[in-house]
Amino acid sequence: MASSEAERKTVGWAARDQSGILSPYTYTLRNTGPEDVYIKVLCCGLCHRDTDIHQAKNDLGSSRYPMVPGHEVVGEVIEVGSEVMKFKVGERVGVGLVVWCCRNCGACKAGLEQYCNKKIFNFNDVCTDGKPTQGGFAQHMVVDQKFVVKIPEGMESEQVAPLLCAGITVYSPLRHLGLIGSGRRGGILGLGGVGHMGVKLAKAMGHHVTVISSSVMKEEVALKHLGADAYLVSSDEDAMNSAADSLDYIIDTMPVSHPLEPYLVLLKVDGKLVLTGIINTPLQFASPMVMMGRKSIMGTFIGSTKETEEMLCFCKDKGLTSQIEAVKMDYINEAFQRVMRKDVRYRFVVDVAGSKLDM
Amino acid sequence: MASSEAERKTVGWAARDQSGILSPYTYTLRNTGPEDVYIKVLCCGLCHRDTDIHQAKNDLGSSRYPMVPGHEVVGEVIEVGSEVMKFKVGERVGVGLVVWCCRNCGACKAGLEQYCNKKIFNFNDVCTDGKPTQGGFAQHMVVDQKFVVKIPEGMESEQVAPLLCAGITVYSPLRHLGLIGSGRRGGILGLGGVGHMGVKLAKAMGHHVTVISSSVMKEEVALKHLGADAYLVSSDEDAMNSAADSLDYIIDTMPVSHPLEPYLVLLKVDGKLVLTGIINTPLQFASPMVMMGRKSIMGTFIGSTKETEEMLCFCKDKGLTSQIEAVKMDYINEAFQRVMRKDVRYRFVVDVAGSKLDM
Repeated sequence: MASSEAERKTVGWAARDQSGILSPYTYTLRNTGPEDVYIKVLCCGLCHRDTDIHQAKNDLGSSRYPMVPGHEVVGEVIEVGSEVMKFKVGERVGVGLVVWCCRNCGACKAGLEQYCNKKIFNFNDVCTDGKPTQGGFAQHMVVDQKFVVKIPEGMESEQVAPLLCAGITVYSPLRHLGLIGSGRRGGILGLGGVGHMGVKLAKAMGHHVTVISSSVMKEEVALKHLGADAYLVSSDEDAMNSAADSLDYIIDTMPVSHPLEPYLVLLKVDGKLVLTGIINTPLQFASPMVMMGRKSIMGTFIGSTKETEEMLCFCKDKGLTSQIEAVKMDYINEAFQRVMRKDVRYRFVVDVAGSKLDM
Repeated sequence: MASSEAERKTVGWAARDQSGILSPYTYTLRNTGPEDVYIKVLCCGLCHRDTDIHQAKNDLGSSRYPMVPGHEVVGEVIEVGSEVMKFKVGERVGVGLVVWCCRNCGACKAGLEQYCNKKIFNFNDVCTDGKPTQGGFAQHMVVDQKFVVKIPEGMESEQVAPLLCAGITVYSPLRHLGLIGSGRRGGILGLGGVGHMGVKLAKAMGHHVTVISSSVMKEEVALKHLGADAYLVSSDEDAMNSAADSLDYIIDTMPVSHPLEPYLVLLKVDGKLVLTGIINTPLQFASPMVMMGRKSIMGTFIGSTKETEEMLCFCKDKGLTSQIEAVKMDYINEAFQRVMRKDVRYRFVVDVAGSKLDM
């Protein structure tokens, strides 16, 4: 049933300016409309990319303050609208980066709402009612059911959270390229939140997985803990030359500018370099690097609600989880700093329900 | 049968230095080996790109002189080796840019010899015997049968020549992407030798074809003579904005550096920008331009012998020819100048057999 209350207040942690420092912020949520799900947030992952830290610090130049980030949200349904049949009060659900789409364009009609040009993000955006959207580092959210996913029973909430962005970011292109179960040879460039899920997902799909990193430091953890098959240090010219023409794809998880050519060289004929990081400076390559081998530089952006639900079932079936460090909300600013120093394995997840938000 | 003569002399027109000026040059050809076809050249197209003019003028920094360019070669078989069953003396054949491959790598085993890393080009390269390869602006060539294609009966030699590079350059990616007969919406960026074949081939495949050009000058010829459905001037912002998200693919035929982003905007979700021009300066784009729409920047390079034969049959079936200006060899240096001024519709083809080469 729809709520009959006046607009509801909730408390989140918001950035106020491009310092990106988060602090408690009280704001209103819309009432539960016919298609809406009113959610009590349980936990929320912290993402470097498309996203939390970039936007909080205005790295992309489009930030609106106050801004409550957070788009890897796991919560509990506490109210549903009159038209909502898929979810019940008390169920565990997830919310990702997109919370509205036009439903009329080619992308929407193809079930690829993440590519709708009119899509609305779950934070740092403006809702159809003209109010700012606010994310998951908050007590509550109200979200259209189309953008809410079921969380399979038996999965830990805090380990599911990073799947909703980091996980789907890798799953979606591999699924789209038809590579599940293909036994292909893949590369994962960068071993952060997305990269570590990349290794796990690609291994679970039956691939031979090479981690490519700028540093030798993560070699042991990549090979022994995450199960990668090989490790390449990008500055090791001999090793990079030996690995030329060896990979069917590379998932490029780097969220900062970097050369593409050293990685294009690693691809076989018809190989694909899949960009997943929003980068605010141009990337460069010379045309023969793709022409000689019919290679592609492809971009991909999260995944659809449908793909996200499929990915969660895949992860459950394979017993696949993310590796996280759970923290309370009052640690979030330190967590931002540590993510920027790459000092986290591999994702911070804030235990929102277990934190005191209105300090 | 194999020739029993000593090495044979032939005459071609060679560049001697990076002025790129061609003049008569006498050199030796190998005897006809068991797998070789000895060919009398009938005519040869002049290509700006991967190739004739770039290499003659050392634009790519890898030129070897004296150099006889020419890689759109139509000729008549005058002798075949003992193992050659596919061709007979007197038959009309074609030769393109590649004349040797390793036969052992993944590309060769997949029948994609144009992507073999050890491939040998038909000119400005070194043959397995250590001698320079020389191209089609010459009286004769000796070519391994694997790289010789049959020319279907009833096609004019001079109109076939440009199909062997310009034609296959467009046919191969469209074929690879499964777009023959698909009714897709395509763009052809640049209306030179490759671009004009692009319009004709894409129309013959049943596509809606938009020509994208920097100048309004070619609009009438694109729409009325070549049969394009639409024409976009890249500097017309309103028209470019109106055409956003409208194309399934763009064949980018530009052989010089240019921005990619205005064209990425034109692509639909899953659209492909197919680069076909060797460009010796880096190309740039920002990652969101491909991520938001799961777009690809793909490279492609000519096509295989098998695809080339298939393309020739396709062109014959569809009654599709190239639009050329036939010239004699003594006009070649003027023709180079005119190609660089873009003053040709759309390809010069040299009537080699009808020219006096040893002046």
